[in-house]
Amino acid sequence: MSQQAMNGVPSRGKVLTLDNMNPNVKLVEYAVRGPIVQRAVQIEKELKEGVKKPFTEVIKANIGDAHAMGQKPITFLRQVLALCSYPELLEDNKFPEDAKKRARRILEACGGHSIGAYSASQGIECVRQDVACYIERRDGGIPSSPDNIYLSTGASDAIVTMLKLLVCGEGRDRTGVMISIPQYPLYSAALADLGAVQISYYLDEDKCWSLDVTELRRAVNAARQHCNPRVLCIINPGNPTGQVQSRQCIEDVIRFAKEEHLFLMADEVYQDNVYAEGSKFHSFKKVLFEMGPEYSSTVEMASFHSTSKCYMGECGFRGGYMEVINMDPEVKVQLTKLVSVRLCPPVPGQALLDLVVNPPQPDEPSYTTFMKERTAVLTALAEKARLTEEIFNTVPGITCNPVQGAMYTFPRITLPQKAIDKAKEEGQVPDMFYCMKLLEEEGICLVPGSGFGQREGTFHFRMTILPPAEKLKFVLQKIRDFHLRFTQQFS
Amino acid sequence: MSQQAMNGVPSRGKVLTLDNMNPNVKLVEYAVRGPIVQRAVQIEKELKEGVKKPFTEVIKANIGDAHAMGQKPITFLRQVLALCSYPELLEDNKFPEDAKKRARRILEACGGHSIGAYSASQGIECVRQDVACYIERRDGGIPSSPDNIYLSTGASDAIVTMLKLLVCGEGRDRTGVMISIPQYPLYSAALADLGAVQISYYLDEDKCWSLDVTELRRAVNAARQHCNPRVLCIINPGNPTGQVQSRQCIEDVIRFAKEEHLFLMADEVYQDNVYAEGSKFHSFKKVLFEMGPEYSSTVEMASFHSTSKCYMGECGFRGGYMEVINMDPEVKVQLTKLVSVRLCPPVPGQALLDLVVNPPQPDEPSYTTFMKERTAVLTALAEKARLTEEIFNTVPGITCNPVQGAMYTFPRITLPQKAIDKAKEEGQVPDMFYCMKLLEEEGICLVPGSGFGQREGTFHFRMTILPPAEKLKFVLQKIRDFHLRFTQQFS
Repeated sequence: MSQQAMNGVPSRGKVLTLDNMNPNVKLVEYAVRGPIVQRAVQIEKELKEGVKKPFTEVIKANIGDAHAMGQKPITFLRQVLALCSYPELLEDNKFPEDAKKRARRILEACGGHSIGAYSASQGIECVRQDVACYIERRDGGIPSSPDNIYLSTGASDAIVTMLKLLVCGEGRDRTGVMISIPQYPLYSAALADLGAVQISYYLDEDKCWSLDVTELRRAVNAARQHCNPRVLCIINPGNPTGQVQSRQCIEDVIRFAKEEHLFLMADEVYQDNVYAEGSKFHSFKKVLFEMGPEYSSTVEMASFHSTSKCYMGECGFRGGYMEVINMDPEVKVQLTKLVSVRLCPPVPGQALLDLVVNPPQPDEPSYTTFMKERTAVLTALAEKARLTEEIFNTVPGITCNPVQGAMYTFPRITLPQKAIDKAKEEGQVPDMFYCMKLLEEEGICLVPGSGFGQREGTFHFRMTILPPAEKLKFVLQKIRDFHLRFTQQFS
Repeated sequence: MSQQAMNGVPSRGKVLTLDNMNPNVKLVEYAVRGPIVQRAVQIEKELKEGVKKPFTEVIKANIGDAHAMGQKPITFLRQVLALCSYPELLEDNKFPEDAKKRARRILEACGGHSIGAYSASQGIECVRQDVACYIERRDGGIPSSPDNIYLSTGASDAIVTMLKLLVCGEGRDRTGVMISIPQYPLYSAALADLGAVQISYYLDEDKCWSLDVTELRRAVNAARQHCNPRVLCIINPGNPTGQVQSRQCIEDVIRFAKEEHLFLMADEVYQDNVYAEGSKFHSFKKVLFEMGPEYSSTVEMASFHSTSKCYMGECGFRGGYMEVINMDPEVKVQLTKLVSVRLCPPVPGQALLDLVVNPPQPDEPSYTTFMKERTAVLTALAEKARLTEEIFNTVPGITCNPVQGAMYTFPRITLPQKAIDKAKEEGQVPDMFYCMKLLEEEGICLVPGSGFGQREGTFHFRMTILPPAEKLKFVLQKIRDFHLRFTQQFS
């Protein structure tokens, strides 16, 4: 019996449907966990249920998730977290004194000496102090104030909050936000959600994904016809592209931001992930301050960092911070109010961040082990970055820039016209078609380049370099075989 | 030298100012961490610096933060969290076997067996299974599916996400959301941020803050003149008002939601905090299903829970979940996509939630201690609820409904006209004036009723009942003395 017949009144259908839900949410896309990953999860289930496949496990190289790829947590970090979680362990002789010292300091700064209490919405004060000290050390003594530090639920949270503050206006006055193409899709997703205008500027693949101010200027000028450009987002080291910006480039970008009156957002979550000979991480803040007071006292900026990447890879804890520079004090009051609505970032993540910015010192008992573990991770990543570039560039139809930093490679793939046609026939973009086939045939999960943006007519994928070296070699070999087979099949 | 003179070009001022920032953010208010709390933090600093005050510590009764008020963490929860953080402890004989069993199960469900890996965006599957089992047990066997469970960063996160899905339209078609007055200000803050229309319905203070469908009807009819009412939010047990809804009331509300074609949002984070004789927690879901298929197969609903309240009070971990019922499958796809942008809720909070929904069983070694600790917290809260009502009602000019549940009292205060005039003179709302004076004179931090909403011409404050019994008595006595003094001063 239909609902109408049962009630005697016409059925009105659902309150909330695809047709009447928030239209901005529908526009949100996040390829890193998109349809290909859902299919990967499904295949994993099928394997468990005994369905026969040409492979025995799915290798998820779609996301920068170090621990999921087998990287072991850094001992010191986890010891302190255990001590903070269960302070009875402070009496246990198995834990080193420096770990206990850190745990006691964090607990003393917590309400009721418990990481189960809410912290201040901006984050625990002593953690913000430690972050400020870390930034000062990193930037050769340029001052940093805990008042300008906002702890966050991973960097994503802080990035979205900052964008939210900046969005206003309607029609041609709508806020425009410049993001690189290729980009990390958090940015495009947040802009869709907030109803802001995305202004795309292209990185130069032929010059190792470098950023050119001429291209920034082209993009901002074109955008001024239809929106109000107010923000310039930079990811350095680059995601998904792996480039590390030169000091000169950063200076040029800062000068451009000042000229064009743009708020700078510097996503620097891969600041410890620099591998290439001759590449070095330069923080936007340091360069800004070295350019003199004309810049350092005027250019508004926010810089973002996270506990999820670098050598620690503690994604699950959702720790992070942003530092704001030259922000209008009245706007800061609004920012502090806005973050207070969500009460506070997760306190275990704040504790973890404290350890990352305040690691064991040479005279402390945990120093040797800590440095050994940290170095092992970063050295292995450097080797895997080299290996990835080397192997991909031996494959006809794959070209790959050096992975100077971050955790990904974004190689360009040449697809035969027949494959492109076939993809269109099946209603898929060609690189999604390619990646889906790779997943089905080899059990390797990558993200199609279209999820990050790429120049029209070019195709790419993003792969993390995180699998252990032997497995990475295996994956690279599999992709090589697949690519050759795919090219032949559609030739 | 001015910037203009220095550069030779006119200064353009800041990119981001109060005038050109997101106007919705400016409308956001969150009294629980508002100006009075900022002043409290300042006073704490002054005390530390040796400034003389008529008190020696600030007692922050403004927020439901159990651990900050001295409540000890539940041993079992923290043992498992320590084991998950530092799995080397799994070899340690000091930890009970059931704690180890839970830790192993959680770790096995994590990528790379580490809580440092990202989880699925919807939450770890086995945790969602445990949540579904918990709901089934709670609701006498009514089925719950892990597919309908979304883990979240505290309940706040899930509530905002759900509201975001529901907001659309412009002008008279804008989504209207019904919230109680008094309300928990997360709701009004989220609605301001999203640009949705707040529809206020008043709870009946004279009837112990009960909810009457006549009032719901009045509110929705009035609202239909200027917006599109689509959502009805209920907080049960009530925050800030402490009432526990009767089964009959919940049935009436569900019937109303169906008639008026509203999406129901049931904030049930205080579901274990019920103290009053004759009061009992009835989940909206259970009542919905007991009303038969006409309701259980049509009324769309989301219910929210958290690890921050009840007996555990683990606010800092930001754990929580929502269960969605009768949600359009296409909308669920959008919801899953939306939450994926933030990658995942904090994994330690997910682990904690798993323990809350899957506590030690009678045949397990931790059972006795766990039950003893849990009962002690809840018994003490019940006693403090009684005590608070009793003492407040002895004060002339303060009237206080029974605290049937949750963690707060919201007494009504009679303010002399001269105090009201004086407050206006100083540009403050009268209950803020009252609470500020209480803070300055006695070091007690409450939240003015105006931060939650109240009927025109009435005044209240919210106070948590969380301080230890002796301290609570002290606080109640201080408020009593202050109130008498204040009344005399302005008579």
